[in-house]
Amino acid sequence: MTKIIDPYGSELVKDYAKAIKDFGLEVFTPTMFPEPNRVMRRGVVFAGRDLAIIAKCIREKKPFYALSGIMPTNDQIHLGNKVVVENLAYFQKHGAITFILIADLEAAAARGVSLEEGRRRALEFHIPAYLALGLDPKRTIFYFQSENKDVVHFAYEAAKKITLNEFKAIYGNADPGRIMSAVTQVGDVLYPQFKERMPGIIPVGLDQDPHIRLARDVVSRMKDRKFFAVSSLYHKYTPSLDGSIKMSKSKPERCISLPEDNKVVCKKIKNALTGGRDTLEEHRRLGAVVEKDMVFELLKQHLIEDDVELNRIYNDYKSGRMTSGELKQIACDKMTAFMEDFKQKLEHNKNLVKDLNFVKFS
Amino acid sequence: MTKIIDPYGSELVKDYAKAIKDFGLEVFTPTMFPEPNRVMRRGVVFAGRDLAIIAKCIREKKPFYALSGIMPTNDQIHLGNKVVVENLAYFQKHGAITFILIADLEAAAARGVSLEEGRRRALEFHIPAYLALGLDPKRTIFYFQSENKDVVHFAYEAAKKITLNEFKAIYGNADPGRIMSAVTQVGDVLYPQFKERMPGIIPVGLDQDPHIRLARDVVSRMKDRKFFAVSSLYHKYTPSLDGSIKMSKSKPERCISLPEDNKVVCKKIKNALTGGRDTLEEHRRLGAVVEKDMVFELLKQHLIEDDVELNRIYNDYKSGRMTSGELKQIACDKMTAFMEDFKQKLEHNKNLVKDLNFVKFS
Repeated sequence: MTKIIDPYGSELVKDYAKAIKDFGLEVFTPTMFPEPNRVMRRGVVFAGRDLAIIAKCIREKKPFYALSGIMPTNDQIHLGNKVVVENLAYFQKHGAITFILIADLEAAAARGVSLEEGRRRALEFHIPAYLALGLDPKRTIFYFQSENKDVVHFAYEAAKKITLNEFKAIYGNADPGRIMSAVTQVGDVLYPQFKERMPGIIPVGLDQDPHIRLARDVVSRMKDRKFFAVSSLYHKYTPSLDGSIKMSKSKPERCISLPEDNKVVCKKIKNALTGGRDTLEEHRRLGAVVEKDMVFELLKQHLIEDDVELNRIYNDYKSGRMTSGELKQIACDKMTAFMEDFKQKLEHNKNLVKDLNFVKFS
Repeated sequence: MTKIIDPYGSELVKDYAKAIKDFGLEVFTPTMFPEPNRVMRRGVVFAGRDLAIIAKCIREKKPFYALSGIMPTNDQIHLGNKVVVENLAYFQKHGAITFILIADLEAAAARGVSLEEGRRRALEFHIPAYLALGLDPKRTIFYFQSENKDVVHFAYEAAKKITLNEFKAIYGNADPGRIMSAVTQVGDVLYPQFKERMPGIIPVGLDQDPHIRLARDVVSRMKDRKFFAVSSLYHKYTPSLDGSIKMSKSKPERCISLPEDNKVVCKKIKNALTGGRDTLEEHRRLGAVVEKDMVFELLKQHLIEDDVELNRIYNDYKSGRMTSGELKQIACDKMTAFMEDFKQKLEHNKNLVKDLNFVKFS
């Protein structure tokens, strides 16, 4: 059984280890890349595909790209988006040509958000929010899927390279709408290579892996195009505050969105599943079960940058010196500071949007 | 069993009657429309869908459209294209706003013809050829599929309205590439209604009926869009010169393309299946089996406009007064005249292309 590197939590190891085995992923170790970021160091990033070629590009300062998409549906994003952007920002800082595509075509088809409405939401919220999470506005290239004829034309070609049964094997089902979306995403993922072939890395949640597999399959069938098979980097989901594997808007009281009201978010933290013991006496004696603690998970994944500080809290809590009430207060304070900073940057970035680097299509 | 109106031939009736029954088509009768054209009068046009609404538009001079597509693959077209254009020209003459789309996206995906090459072929050959077959250059609207974002965006929506099983029921198979092409064709078929809802008619060969059914299904699932279900008009295939149901380039000696060298085409006619008898004596006594005669079929479907002239030849041949050699000579002369006229118009129309009405997309 493949071992997952996760210094703090082990609750979820089984699911992710299974994924690594089932999907044939590489196990990620923080030493693979220089100056690993918080989520890389903390075992949130846990796997990848073809990571060595990206590490080599970073080391040798060779051209490569990093890419992610924005689905401009809701007026909030979630902590999973935050991890993606942080990884994207990591690669950007380490030399990646960085692309953000706005999946307005998919938002229209899948969620009935008109192209105009999708564009408005992306410009007024999603793009400023992504920048607030750490992307460099001057060095990020944006495009709208609906404007990118090259991607759409490529999708038609890609569709011819894949049979229905192969599609079903990857996605489980194969409704026409899903097929259209998926082959378009293959176009998006490869778009930076249309002009110049180079390695590229796509940071994603595990649920996006089918798109990566499809893209890699298509690349292998277009040998004459000489595309590099895209690399990918997988992070664990931020668990729901009740301890289930993935935070989800279907349980709003257990889910933290960005932005969110400070009082509301602190109340959610207060009601989260912790690893604290039933009585104070027992807690002091046995210490917390940190592995089960969703508040500690928030600190670890999102709120504390400094490893020394996180380790101190871990030891204090694990030993019972710190109560879960005290841990929650720390999380509430840090979350409030994060939200304030995020909201401020969000407002500021709205003014930057008009000067961003959008790809122009004839 | 549905009866097909076909005053001259009966060989193919069974297949087409079955199609009418299986696909739920309306039987076409020449009296449905004013001034029916040659192929309508001669039983080549044999069925349709929702024809009454188009007849009403013609009668009451209400807006409607007629549409067809060009697949810019080869450097020749065939007699089936000729029938489509003749029907399109009929509706144009009777008030239809007339659209021709160039399916360059599909040609690229399905046949590997690059968009640039597809565009070149369409401008240099297919469009001039379609005009040569009777379309009014001043009153025909053209667009390139690859430029028409509205059609492609609609395809994404349409894909969401149809399940894989429904798709399979219509098309028999459902490969991803086929799905992409089909939903894009639904977009094409409805495109003229994006701005103004109105009835429309698509003249097609029977093999194109799946697209019509898919388009009508999609319309019925987008009730809020208030599209008119498209009408369609079906013509029989021009039979192969050896008597099989459809002329096909897979048997080049049995197939007449446009344009074609005069000597070559006359040789093909000379070798065609006829209804002549084994000996002259027998022929004079029994007369020709006109129903089996592929040369007469050419005259009927393509080469003789005047019903009186065609009837005279029919009677002479049927009675044995005319030999199949004489019939072939008539066909060769008429075909040569047609080809000369076609080639001349083709050359002339190449100069018109730059002034045609192409839809501009931002």
